[in-house]
Amino acid sequence: MFSRPNCPALDAILGQEFPILNHGFIRVVDYMGGDDAVVQAARVSYGAGTKTVRDDRALIRYLLSHSHTTPFEMAEIKLHVKMPIFVARQWIRHRTASVNEYSARYSILDKEFYSPSAEAIAAQSDSNRQGRGKPLELREQNDVNETITAISNASYDAYVALLNENDQGEQLNPDRLGLARELARSVLPVGFYTQWYWKTDLHNLLRFLELRTDPHAQWEIRQYALKILDIVKVWAPLTYEAFIDFRSGRTELSAAATNVVQRWLAGEAVSQEDSGLSKREWNDLQNSLKPK
Amino acid sequence: MFSRPNCPALDAILGQEFPILNHGFIRVVDYMGGDDAVVQAARVSYGAGTKTVRDDRALIRYLLSHSHTTPFEMAEIKLHVKMPIFVARQWIRHRTASVNEYSARYSILDKEFYSPSAEAIAAQSDSNRQGRGKPLELREQNDVNETITAISNASYDAYVALLNENDQGEQLNPDRLGLARELARSVLPVGFYTQWYWKTDLHNLLRFLELRTDPHAQWEIRQYALKILDIVKVWAPLTYEAFIDFRSGRTELSAAATNVVQRWLAGEAVSQEDSGLSKREWNDLQNSLKPK
Amino acid sequence: MFSRPNCPALDAILGQEFPILNHGFIRVVDYMGGDDAVVQAARVSYGAGTKTVRDDRALIRYLLSHSHTTPFEMAEIKLHVKMPIFVARQWIRHRTASVNEYSARYSILDKEFYSPSAEAIAAQSDSNRQGRGKPLELREQNDVNETITAISNASYDAYVALLNENDQGEQLNPDRLGLARELARSVLPVGFYTQWYWKTDLHNLLRFLELRTDPHAQWEIRQYALKILDIVKVWAPLTYEAFIDFRSGRTELSAAATNVVQRWLAGEAVSQEDSGLSKREWNDLQNSLKPK
Amino acid sequence: MFSRPNCPALDAILGQEFPILNHGFIRVVDYMGGDDAVVQAARVSYGAGTKTVRDDRALIRYLLSHSHTTPFEMAEIKLHVKMPIFVARQWIRHRTASVNEYSARYSILDKEFYSPSAEAIAAQSDSNRQGRGKPLELREQNDVNETITAISNASYDAYVALLNENDQGEQLNPDRLGLARELARSVLPVGFYTQWYWKTDLHNLLRFLELRTDPHAQWEIRQYALKILDIVKVWAPLTYEAFIDFRSGRTELSAAATNVVQRWLAGEAVSQEDSGLSKREWNDLQNSLKPK
Repeated sequence: MFSRPNCPALDAILGQEFPILNHGFIRVVDYMGGDDAVVQAARVSYGAGTKTVRDDRALIRYLLSHSHTTPFEMAEIKLHVKMPIFVARQWIRHRTASVNEYSARYSILDKEFYSPSAEAIAAQSDSNRQGRGKPLELREQNDVNETITAISNASYDAYVALLNENDQGEQLNPDRLGLARELARSVLPVGFYTQWYWKTDLHNLLRFLELRTDPHAQWEIRQYALKILDIVKVWAPLTYEAFIDFRSGRTELSAAATNVVQRWLAGEAVSQEDSGLSKREWNDLQNSLKPK
Repeated sequence: MFSRPNCPALDAILGQEFPILNHGFIRVVDYMGGDDAVVQAARVSYGAGTKTVRDDRALIRYLLSHSHTTPFEMAEIKLHVKMPIFVARQWIRHRTASVNEYSARYSILDKEFYSPSAEAIAAQSDSNRQGRGKPLELREQNDVNETITAISNASYDAYVALLNENDQGEQLNPDRLGLARELARSVLPVGFYTQWYWKTDLHNLLRFLELRTDPHAQWEIRQYALKILDIVKVWAPLTYEAFIDFRSGRTELSAAATNVVQRWLAGEAVSQEDSGLSKREWNDLQNSLKPK
Repeated sequence: MFSRPNCPALDAILGQEFPILNHGFIRVVDYMGGDDAVVQAARVSYGAGTKTVRDDRALIRYLLSHSHTTPFEMAEIKLHVKMPIFVARQWIRHRTASVNEYSARYSILDKEFYSPSAEAIAAQSDSNRQGRGKPLELREQNDVNETITAISNASYDAYVALLNENDQGEQLNPDRLGLARELARSVLPVGFYTQWYWKTDLHNLLRFLELRTDPHAQWEIRQYALKILDIVKVWAPLTYEAFIDFRSGRTELSAAATNVVQRWLAGEAVSQEDSGLSKREWNDLQNSLKPK
Repeated sequence: MFSRPNCPALDAILGQEFPILNHGFIRVVDYMGGDDAVVQAARVSYGAGTKTVRDDRALIRYLLSHSHTTPFEMAEIKLHVKMPIFVARQWIRHRTASVNEYSARYSILDKEFYSPSAEAIAAQSDSNRQGRGKPLELREQNDVNETITAISNASYDAYVALLNENDQGEQLNPDRLGLARELARSVLPVGFYTQWYWKTDLHNLLRFLELRTDPHAQWEIRQYALKILDIVKVWAPLTYEAFIDFRSGRTELSAAATNVVQRWLAGEAVSQEDSGLSKREWNDLQNSLKPK
């Protein structure tokens, strides 16, 4: 008798809303397989060739560290996510996934917009052209929040006025037809929340997590990625552990950097000038390998 | 001597900006192949098996009408497109394509937002829950445009205030750090323009065109799709002609609808009740086949 | 309390081997969602906009007949399949799927090859350059089977001789090293069986079924597709029914053919010459719409 | 005036057949863009944000070493490849590509099969379960080639007998119909040659090259990959150089291995037992970083 594989630890949190940012959330809607599905698929490939007994943990570590990606495609997860539109715009760039998003052509969006918490409010970074740097002072923080709140409220008021209909479906001005929803929504800022069902496999999810838990990812999408990483820990703990060791925590050495490390280990003194590395690459290498 | 295939008619418009909406455009940046590439690929598959001479036009018509999709993947095009964010959000759902978008994390967006022309301003449709119906009266039209303009300007002002930097890169208030770009942009409405390089193959482009030139597509993205269709006519005229006949102009009959048509042609009177069609399907059939 | 969706009718056949051809099979290994997942995803998109109650069956029929593909991506299935290599070669062309195949680099293949049954043995078709036509006479059938059996056995013998190892892992000639498996397998015919885990979503599965249950598909892969279609009937009965009506049983009329049907229905006599159709297209139209 | 980008060095070898193995080849059929397309796309993303002048080489190195993949999708190449079926079966696993293959349902395959050269003939590896190890002795080599040649010839004879038609299209026995091509080909070994047009973008090509130029890839497909790598050097020399440094020549250190290297560099003696690495991982680390 063959019974359907399941993951009790994930079943226990199925459907539960984990809040992210001020109005967002993540919920696990369904899943298929887990660590077992990865192992099962890998053993099909090897067939009778895997005579040596290798336990599941060692197999998963081997697969992940040797670029064997297809077994990780055999586990699947479906999430319900609510997030600001600007986060959705970054998220959707991960193409190997299925998406059904709430449509502002059909329905009226709720009055919910992203209002950053104190820890998220920071100035443009000096060193990183796409990120944020120093936190703002309390006074400037307050001004930021007031500005965002005021303009977001005004935008939503304009949206309602264009629709000539409030979110209860009541007409406002009987002498007007109101503008079509698909057009009225053009005044809503990208800080407003949208939501979708998002389904992907474990391999593509790990790729998402590698990029979006990285400190260079925008802080807001990173909050979603970190929560999903927690979920992976529950769902596929062996894969999670291998991911932390071989992906998110790894160090990549270029051919030139490898050569420098080899020379260091042989006791040779190496300067940036004779390293074959650019100044930037040299600094990166120092930072990643300096003793802690 | 083997020389690289090209399409002189498309070369003649390469790089040219075709304006769409009030600030948008489409430009062809580069391409690979065209009708010739489709034919060449199909002939590889058939090998010596294609002894019967079949000309290129007949072959392309055969391929397109018989769901042979892979030969159309052998031609490729790259476009530079500028469009409102809400159009980009629909466009990106076509996943089999490559995209590089202007990043509002790196750079400050220009003060350019979508302002609909008179012909685009209409009320919510009664019959189609996701589209627009009756045009608005001139007075309401004017109000719509005023509302959109006022709130878009106010949003951009808030953006600049948050950045504490204008689009010349000048700091506004020396006592402030200004908010990081990636966060300040959260107040910009989805009617603001973005731009990207978009590259796809002819097969996936036809799929995009089938969905986005359809009258049920949102009017704004449809303007882009119709211009791209013009470009396909220049680039791959045989494929264009087959597309018009077999895809955008086709009629699909379900098994039940096929049975009704067969009975009609045999001279039988058929009522909706004994047709096996729902009322909606019955009306659709009447509309698509009634004599013109 | 949120509990994981399941499909009892599919659970009842989970893991069961359905034999196909002389040595092949299909087994359902796991799945996620079903008709419910399609409906759930579609309702997210519509949001509060679906105020009219529309039942699940009508919604699924609407989605499938109006090219709404993404909700069907929300259900997933994983199959274990054993099939001849030439079938696997056609199957793998469906790219939006995950595959883990038994590796002949790691393991020795079994002595199992495709031996066609009487109904499958036919001559090259006269009309269809890629298919089979008239059945062969019994005498020629017998010769075919003898030829296939003899050369397949001889090929396997050569394989074993090259390996210098039988499928029990016993070395044959102690004076030889034997050839590496990845190289020895080069003498095995494409009629030999391979196996894999194959996972895809319901949308892509329907696309596979539309192409591979078609009478123009090779008879052997069609046997697999027909069995999978039976499985879909158990797993997602509403989607199955809509598929039969709107996809596998539909008739597609080109713009020119639509015009002909409109003229017919208006009582006009139309000849091929003034129809705008080629002779081939004219015949196709006659065949698809002639009264039955 | 906008003129179409081209690459003169690649134009010079367009259409030229580079022989691989005993009957195979690679030809470049067409391409779109090159290093310039990568740079162009990256600069669109950065917009006015790239005020610092960074030259093309530095930009490409930065992109490749920081996992920016989309700019590399903006260059495209189309190859005509002839290779043994078992090589095609490995190649096709790279799904993000377009393929049109010669069809043995339409046409009769030529009598061309893979016959390994002396350097390719080796025993199963002891350490690597999927690869080859020691070369065979000359006597065993000769036996291998004789066995492969004899059984391949016998298989082709069986194929012709089943078809009842030789490759000149002449019927052999007038009393027989002959078996359909799609079925007769089932006796042909996977060492026989097939051919296809294959089109992919530079990002996915690099992924192919990383996996298939690796010493763990099967020797035969590696010969194709190495030739394509030569072609990339001509086509996109800056990307080629960055690929060699950051991809094919890189060293990946897990979190645990990074810690070991940090301790080594701090002058600490580390044993496998207190390294946190398995024996296998410890040996891998020694091999990759030992001074040369």
